[in-house]
Amino acid sequence: MCRWVAYTGAPILLEDLIIKPKDNLIQQSLHARAPRTPTNGDGFGMGWYDKQPNPGLFRSIRPAWNDLNLLDLAAHIESPLFMAHVRATSLATIQETNCHPFRYKQWLFVHNGQIAQFDLMRQQLLAKIAPKYFANILGSTDSEVMFHLALTLGLEEDVPSAIAAMVREVEATAKESGVNEALWMTLGISDGRNLWGFRYGSDGKGPTLYISPGMEEINRINPEIARKLGRFAACLVSEPIGNYQDTWKLIPEQSHVFIGGAHIQMSEFNVKE
Amino acid sequence: MCRWVAYTGAPILLEDLIIKPKDNLIQQSLHARAPRTPTNGDGFGMGWYDKQPNPGLFRSIRPAWNDLNLLDLAAHIESPLFMAHVRATSLATIQETNCHPFRYKQWLFVHNGQIAQFDLMRQQLLAKIAPKYFANILGSTDSEVMFHLALTLGLEEDVPSAIAAMVREVEATAKESGVNEALWMTLGISDGRNLWGFRYGSDGKGPTLYISPGMEEINRINPEIARKLGRFAACLVSEPIGNYQDTWKLIPEQSHVFIGGAHIQMSEFNVKE
Amino acid sequence: MCRWVAYTGAPILLEDLIIKPKDNLIQQSLHARAPRTPTNGDGFGMGWYDKQPNPGLFRSIRPAWNDLNLLDLAAHIESPLFMAHVRATSLATIQETNCHPFRYKQWLFVHNGQIAQFDLMRQQLLAKIAPKYFANILGSTDSEVMFHLALTLGLEEDVPSAIAAMVREVEATAKESGVNEALWMTLGISDGRNLWGFRYGSDGKGPTLYISPGMEEINRINPEIARKLGRFAACLVSEPIGNYQDTWKLIPEQSHVFIGGAHIQMSEFNVKE
Amino acid sequence: MCRWVAYTGAPILLEDLIIKPKDNLIQQSLHARAPRTPTNGDGFGMGWYDKQPNPGLFRSIRPAWNDLNLLDLAAHIESPLFMAHVRATSLATIQETNCHPFRYKQWLFVHNGQIAQFDLMRQQLLAKIAPKYFANILGSTDSEVMFHLALTLGLEEDVPSAIAAMVREVEATAKESGVNEALWMTLGISDGRNLWGFRYGSDGKGPTLYISPGMEEINRINPEIARKLGRFAACLVSEPIGNYQDTWKLIPEQSHVFIGGAHIQMSEFNVKE
Repeated sequence: MCRWVAYTGAPILLEDLIIKPKDNLIQQSLHARAPRTPTNGDGFGMGWYDKQPNPGLFRSIRPAWNDLNLLDLAAHIESPLFMAHVRATSLATIQETNCHPFRYKQWLFVHNGQIAQFDLMRQQLLAKIAPKYFANILGSTDSEVMFHLALTLGLEEDVPSAIAAMVREVEATAKESGVNEALWMTLGISDGRNLWGFRYGSDGKGPTLYISPGMEEINRINPEIARKLGRFAACLVSEPIGNYQDTWKLIPEQSHVFIGGAHIQMSEFNVKE
Repeated sequence: MCRWVAYTGAPILLEDLIIKPKDNLIQQSLHARAPRTPTNGDGFGMGWYDKQPNPGLFRSIRPAWNDLNLLDLAAHIESPLFMAHVRATSLATIQETNCHPFRYKQWLFVHNGQIAQFDLMRQQLLAKIAPKYFANILGSTDSEVMFHLALTLGLEEDVPSAIAAMVREVEATAKESGVNEALWMTLGISDGRNLWGFRYGSDGKGPTLYISPGMEEINRINPEIARKLGRFAACLVSEPIGNYQDTWKLIPEQSHVFIGGAHIQMSEFNVKE
Repeated sequence: MCRWVAYTGAPILLEDLIIKPKDNLIQQSLHARAPRTPTNGDGFGMGWYDKQPNPGLFRSIRPAWNDLNLLDLAAHIESPLFMAHVRATSLATIQETNCHPFRYKQWLFVHNGQIAQFDLMRQQLLAKIAPKYFANILGSTDSEVMFHLALTLGLEEDVPSAIAAMVREVEATAKESGVNEALWMTLGISDGRNLWGFRYGSDGKGPTLYISPGMEEINRINPEIARKLGRFAACLVSEPIGNYQDTWKLIPEQSHVFIGGAHIQMSEFNVKE
Repeated sequence: MCRWVAYTGAPILLEDLIIKPKDNLIQQSLHARAPRTPTNGDGFGMGWYDKQPNPGLFRSIRPAWNDLNLLDLAAHIESPLFMAHVRATSLATIQETNCHPFRYKQWLFVHNGQIAQFDLMRQQLLAKIAPKYFANILGSTDSEVMFHLALTLGLEEDVPSAIAAMVREVEATAKESGVNEALWMTLGISDGRNLWGFRYGSDGKGPTLYISPGMEEINRINPEIARKLGRFAACLVSEPIGNYQDTWKLIPEQSHVFIGGAHIQMSEFNVKE
């Protein structure tokens, strides 16, 4: 099981959210207790938007908690919109190109979950990716394939429709390979202006996804953030962080959340055409 | 341009061939002078056979010359049949899964050269790999695709035929993508008993491939080897090593060399069916 | 807290002990549950003796569980005497030169424990190391300093005396810095023929150290070992491994164990002169 | 021989100077042709000042030319004052803690050159470092020792005096060890406001150090810089970069250059007390 956070709001240092709060992503990665994936030490990544046209990316196969470069970068890079991800896997190889976020032009993509028995359908799914996106595939994860399939299916035009189409494509391909209820995911996606989150499971039970509570509570995540945040900020997280974890709001199963223009909009994520 | 060596003969330490001779692979990697690829610092790998059923593999993205683990391993691993490879690329990402040798069960594969404009046909070539071999693909190089395509086309039964079929397949796919004379390669392949070398270029001009001269000269590569070697030993190298470089024999264009049972057999490599 | 194993006996593959038994070192490293050091992901190392004059060394700052090279090497390197170590630290930097074992000529050294407030006395302790050994210090750990101090104090001539002298030196230096009861350690040391283990704490409470039970039980650690082991084999481990953990014998506090010539000798470790 | 650049002026992206100009630091690192150190592939580092109290640091043991993180960071980090360094060594181990710049609080330090036979005097020099700075020493290079010795000798109060005292200390210690004319160096030092450069050799022949020419020429290093630079900018480089290399000014032997408050001041570097 992987873990991720995404933030949008006034510019803060990446460490304000990733490193400093209680039970932050790095802490979580050290203490993970799920039976088959006891620690998230299989790679870290963060992507951030600044005034450059495309987001910056830092990915490392060192465990997050012992990567001096990561600690330094998080203490110096400030951004109004960023994502970070820690990976735990017994599946795809540990290499930087398998670390999230994945990037295509101005797009960033993080994923928690998996395609069941991905090995059985990896080749078929790869064949369905449009050639213009294919050259951007450098690793061997299901996550990267899902992202590029979504791009192929129109992510650059309409995010929720493309994600729904990707889900249908994956589920159909899985069914052909004899795998039912193949998909289990939360996704975080951004184009540098907006942030989309998805929670979905083929069997109706996706991994958890939380959204930060109101500004009052978000200000308490980290006392140093409080004075930086303006009137609006929001986070999506795979698991709550900070001192007041029970104030975080669990996003319902099969949901889609859109955060843009200082507004949050939650809706059902219906993959049916 | 990459560089590689393959050895078969009495067991020697890997360092006897890779590290200690004058102008060895590591030295070559530091001093490479080809205009567009000035140094072979983009990954190292070595594969060796011992009494285990499948060969061992050590691959590293550090430059060979500063990898303490590599130096130590080469000084302690002894083998009667091994390959080593240094990589130089401005193309596929630097990651261990892109380092040679590639391995499938008891097979090892090293490659120098390239498929011209591989990006244009990578997806099509991947689609042609048999599913049973596909799961073994973890990186993003043309070399790994060539190996798995050859496996698909019967490498486990008949090496030269499978390599010829792979060449035809690559050239046909390239032609469809508008690329003529796409392939430029030397290959080293082993199943743990025999060693195959290939030199080929679509335009008749493959990269260089040399075979070691007689035992007298091979004993002079490294004085420490001399007492270890028995009556037969042979090396294939992309460029001569040791003090007496002009004694190495250049393998002719479009050739295939087979080394097995202490015999060397050189023949034309004809890709036509 | 670090973890280590040392083995002496008939030649076995390193993986027979390090990777394959239940609750092996790698598994332990993933599941560590001590409150302040939740996982041993801060570096791995193994050192082994073969027919070369000095032992081989492989050290890596990747977590052991995701290091493909480690898994491959452990499956191919066979040795009658070897050590392996997983590191967990919030102290000295994560770098290969801080990974155990440390090596000097034919000597290997692993350590679990620590010198309390080592920062206060690191410079003084470094100044006490004989110049001939000083050049071999490449990292920044207390462990490496302890090894080279022991070398300075005669390790090459008399292991237990040198370790006792090292303990006195560290405790005296600590006292000058205002630190009482500074030392807490288990040590594994070898010269390629014999194996020494030490368990010591300045306050009488060192970390745990176990020795393997009789041959019958050791054969059950890993069914594949059984047919390889001859009449004698022994392991020292920081924590029991294998299916029958309660058969391992806890070495008493303040003890010294010597394994040589197929004999095991346990004695009090008295640091007083 | 190492290579380094230091920049002060209007904020620019690190890549504007490190990656984009012709014959930039990365290119130089690939094509280095000095006989004994044929390539600068032994580690890279960059340190930059921003609005945080202390500078950021990114250091990597991958060759600069194949480090995707480096390329991305250099394309996103903007700074009015930064340094970058590529390392070539056959001496101290390749590890991040041996990469430049070295940092202490707000200070950054880069070095090219060496202390001859440093091994003979490393222990004595370490003993001369004030305890308050000693804990900051994590690697094994002569450069790091020189920096911390200079800190001990007053770098935080008076840079040129402390560097002169450090030189005297090193030369005296070397002489005791029977090494004459031990020091050969260029240094770049900053406190986040000012930039100091030094060129020195015990025998009067230090490595080269160049300063950028006037604004007209500096604007031509990289057409994209031109519109960013204001009225003042200056670089120190071990070797000229950009298209108009002969416009760079060689700093004379035994010199000290100070760049602060948009002024450049060059003076003799006299180490005599």
